Amino acid sequence: MNTLTEENLSGIANQLRIDSIVATTAAGSGHPSSCMSAADIVAALFFGHMRYDVKNPHHPNNDRFILSKGHAAPLLYSVWAELGIITREHLKTLRELSSDLEGHPTPRLPWVDVATGSLGQGLSVGVGMALSARLDKLDFRTYVLMGDGEIAEGSVWEAASLAGINQLNNLVAIVDCNRLGQSQATAFGYDTDVYRRRFEAFNWRVEVINGHDMEEILEVLAAAGLGKQPLAIIAKTEKGHGVSFIADKDGWHGKALSKDEAAKAIAELQPKAKTGVAEPIPAPSDLPWPKNEAPASYPAPTYKLGDVVATREAFGNALLRIGSVDERVVALDGDTKNSTFSDKFYKKFPERFTECYIAEQNMVGVATGFGTRGKVPFASTFACFFTRAFDQIRLAGISGANVKLVGSHVGVSIGEDGTSQMALEDLAMMRAVEGSVVLYPSDAVCAEKLMDQMAQQKGVAFLRTSRPKTPVIYKNEEEFPIGGAKVQRQAAGDKVTVVGAGVTLFEAIKAADALAKDGIGITVIDAYSIKPLGKDVIKAAAQKTNNLVITVEDHYPEGGLGDAVAGELSVDGIRVHKLAIRELPHSGKPEELMAKYGIDAAAIAQKVKSLV
Amino acid sequence: MNTLTEENLSGIANQLRIDSIVATTAAGSGHPSSCMSAADIVAALFFGHMRYDVKNPHHPNNDRFILSKGHAAPLLYSVWAELGIITREHLKTLRELSSDLEGHPTPRLPWVDVATGSLGQGLSVGVGMALSARLDKLDFRTYVLMGDGEIAEGSVWEAASLAGINQLNNLVAIVDCNRLGQSQATAFGYDTDVYRRRFEAFNWRVEVINGHDMEEILEVLAAAGLGKQPLAIIAKTEKGHGVSFIADKDGWHGKALSKDEAAKAIAELQPKAKTGVAEPIPAPSDLPWPKNEAPASYPAPTYKLGDVVATREAFGNALLRIGSVDERVVALDGDTKNSTFSDKFYKKFPERFTECYIAEQNMVGVATGFGTRGKVPFASTFACFFTRAFDQIRLAGISGANVKLVGSHVGVSIGEDGTSQMALEDLAMMRAVEGSVVLYPSDAVCAEKLMDQMAQQKGVAFLRTSRPKTPVIYKNEEEFPIGGAKVQRQAAGDKVTVVGAGVTLFEAIKAADALAKDGIGITVIDAYSIKPLGKDVIKAAAQKTNNLVITVEDHYPEGGLGDAVAGELSVDGIRVHKLAIRELPHSGKPEELMAKYGIDAAAIAQKVKSLV
Repeated sequence: MNTLTEENLSGIANQLRIDSIVATTAAGSGHPSSCMSAADIVAALFFGHMRYDVKNPHHPNNDRFILSKGHAAPLLYSVWAELGIITREHLKTLRELSSDLEGHPTPRLPWVDVATGSLGQGLSVGVGMALSARLDKLDFRTYVLMGDGEIAEGSVWEAASLAGINQLNNLVAIVDCNRLGQSQATAFGYDTDVYRRRFEAFNWRVEVINGHDMEEILEVLAAAGLGKQPLAIIAKTEKGHGVSFIADKDGWHGKALSKDEAAKAIAELQPKAKTGVAEPIPAPSDLPWPKNEAPASYPAPTYKLGDVVATREAFGNALLRIGSVDERVVALDGDTKNSTFSDKFYKKFPERFTECYIAEQNMVGVATGFGTRGKVPFASTFACFFTRAFDQIRLAGISGANVKLVGSHVGVSIGEDGTSQMALEDLAMMRAVEGSVVLYPSDAVCAEKLMDQMAQQKGVAFLRTSRPKTPVIYKNEEEFPIGGAKVQRQAAGDKVTVVGAGVTLFEAIKAADALAKDGIGITVIDAYSIKPLGKDVIKAAAQKTNNLVITVEDHYPEGGLGDAVAGELSVDGIRVHKLAIRELPHSGKPEELMAKYGIDAAAIAQKVKSLV
Repeated sequence: MNTLTEENLSGIANQLRIDSIVATTAAGSGHPSSCMSAADIVAALFFGHMRYDVKNPHHPNNDRFILSKGHAAPLLYSVWAELGIITREHLKTLRELSSDLEGHPTPRLPWVDVATGSLGQGLSVGVGMALSARLDKLDFRTYVLMGDGEIAEGSVWEAASLAGINQLNNLVAIVDCNRLGQSQATAFGYDTDVYRRRFEAFNWRVEVINGHDMEEILEVLAAAGLGKQPLAIIAKTEKGHGVSFIADKDGWHGKALSKDEAAKAIAELQPKAKTGVAEPIPAPSDLPWPKNEAPASYPAPTYKLGDVVATREAFGNALLRIGSVDERVVALDGDTKNSTFSDKFYKKFPERFTECYIAEQNMVGVATGFGTRGKVPFASTFACFFTRAFDQIRLAGISGANVKLVGSHVGVSIGEDGTSQMALEDLAMMRAVEGSVVLYPSDAVCAEKLMDQMAQQKGVAFLRTSRPKTPVIYKNEEEFPIGGAKVQRQAAGDKVTVVGAGVTLFEAIKAADALAKDGIGITVIDAYSIKPLGKDVIKAAAQKTNNLVITVEDHYPEGGLGDAVAGELSVDGIRVHKLAIRELPHSGKPEELMAKYGIDAAAIAQKVKSLV
């Protein structure tokens, strides 16, 4: 326990306010007033409460801090300056192109686990970290600082609910209740009782404090971890606290001070500011570190050619196969585990499975949290429901998070349930995530081999699985490198190259057989890697078929396989004809729907004939 | 008030159970057990409580019912059969390709306002309807039926919060608490007190009842509308209620009964079932109908060539200009109205503005609700935060909802705030929505003229606005048809066609000027309509420049302008070179970032030179 006096901690808080003002004024933009409301809380956490190795940000048992209100980034950077991790001069490079101190925190900085700035996501990540601590039997705590405006986001309540259900007493949420949003006051202002009742209803222990009273802050922090519930601290604060002409005043959100204003503000703060008074930070307790080592390899899948297995079930088999030898693997699902087949893993390794219930935003955030702790999280649900979490996936991309998403029940081939259950835009969504890998296997062997690589590769990866059973067409030894594609059919004199993936690959093969009877040869490509696209394979094939390509996808025409191929290969003069779902689909039998919307063998054959 | 006896209502409920079983067994799939838990509630609503014109589903003052737990669709269809709207024979066509009775409800049916099936969205739509009723001084009520598993979705709590803030006592949420989810029991089972505390904490009046006790159901419904708060009814029910071998048993989610099981189930239900006993449904009260008529035209914008105006501000001007003569227009924002400029409308028409706070999922759902009531809702926030609501936007597309989304602060040209605030995947997202229109103006006149058309056109439309100020380059009389494009520069002998939009159009024009000095002519196209794409204009231009096209976009390379152009035109042998943001961008000055990531005039000129 740190024994720094409250006076010294309050002095450090004022120094953080000064540094936040200096940095944002130098930048000419930023959110100083949002830094100033939280300065006392943050000073208490970093200099009077948390346990961490200042020299080693990656110590597995460091307490974790998530600045969910990411626009207060300069406050966090100012802490590092006070800790001596960076210089005060460096603070003045805030928001410059050449500086690592960005407008919102990113993991480019070793002390930042995840990018924040899209509000309402930090608590989900914190839940993932807290669950990871429990799994690894580590005693670090996770502290998440949120704004009061921020907790209007539903994802916060998804996270709060799961934390309550799992009794995460190693998780602390702090709400910086400064009353003022960006464009107006929040809905509840200083009615902190509303927040108290909400967190209590979500099974949290709640303490309401004056967020500028260091004694109160330290007292409530000292009680963190007691009992079985997660702790929510509602801290009543003033936006711009400490400076008379800013404190609790409208019109100061996201506004840097002019040089003159900054001088006046600093003149008010300086007498109450202290620097260099920090005591050594208590080290994390010495507990066995989790291994989190990747095995050299995984056992091979064991299918027979001609077996009929849905790729969604192959995912479940792979998750169990990989998870049995790779302790880093954890799984999450949103009450669909008996449809996605993640329940195969759940039954064998319940302690490594998190049931997230029907709350996909939080599921992805929790997975991101696990990823930051060295786990390899596989989160699964119907692919269409990942659209619910696009913003969380977007931030996972910005964070370079190690998150594996597996979406089942894609396209019209799910059949009778109807449009709302059909993923027809998931490829467009996942391709547009920076650094993402997007995979779409056609058979069980391909699905399993891609799963092996997803587990070994770092970053955001998406596996698109299908509901219908499909025949195994690859041997267990076949390799499927990310960024590759497979030539399924090819002969001299082929007229067109047809590129399929998932269920449409089999339609293309059927079409090839039918067309062969009419003496028309086509090349058939399995584009199992949508991003990066196996473009060299497709290009080489296309150039042998007069640059003529037909793509066939169980997806809308925008942003999917067809756009990917055209976007990559039109520069080579390759002409891409897209077969895709071009209207709002209906309920019906899978084969009826694939025929009606023009992505079955007959539609492919007809298109080929129209071109040759 | 309907005076049907409780015995008769319970009898009708059992008939609905029978019809739900018959329909799903005929279909061979579906969710009969989820219909059976809610049958008493639904019978009470439609035959003993709600006021509506059975013959006129579009009566503006009909009570509205939203089946948020859309998988119980057969229960709703069975109600219509009992009302005589459809035949019992027709129920047996459930889920067939040729039938309008789909697996989940869609607005293909006149009694359905919005598609449901992606859980947790109905309450937001209901909030929009309830706000619309208040705006139009109508006294209809909105009833939203949700499952207990469903309310784990954070969007439910976003909606609940806004309903509480606005004291929507014309809104009733009913939770069918049947304890069983899809893959396991819900987190709280029959602990209905958890739900009571949550809704109470969100400022709702809460009643917990036995969902199979008709007397209790009618009594609590009779008290709907009392007081100032919205009403939440937590109805404790049994999944599969009424049939001994299904009721409250695991393993019956989403499972149709076999013919034998159905016969056994119906044998149990038949003695307690009644049909044809319904009394005439009370008509809605006779109040003046809202006009909701589109004006013939809007006043023209009044800019001068050379004025420097950000398109985001032009949106604000247009919203005010259009809204001043079109009473259908309502606006919503997520605490960014002073950045998106929707505050221009808010200041003039506060009663037609809904502050949704920082909760984008709910904002889109509320907008959808307004749209169903004849309003033209414009919802605005930073474009990147619409990713938060992708699932709601997806369902709006399936609903054919009339929803206008306006996203500001796009791309690296926002500058210092950093990646988390930059929309770099919004074009990919919005293009992938079925039936959507995606617009991206470069100057203020174009933005205003596109706004006119968004207000007149029906469906989901997205306007992408920019943060930087740009010069007015079009006359106020210029027309910008949706699906068009503008030739900005063109001369005989041009070597390449450069397609830009938004900020990159001006970079392309600068590049044209620079290249002209080197004797290299390029055609410059303003692709203000991304979907539908102005492909004829682009194609015609490209064919005059040796089929050579360069697209330039402040967006990732996937799914945006470049993919749209290549996806449409590669079939014509047009070669599309994409300039886009190809790595995770950094904080910095807009012009620095556009240069660093290769979408500025210099990058365009360099690319042109590399090709000619």
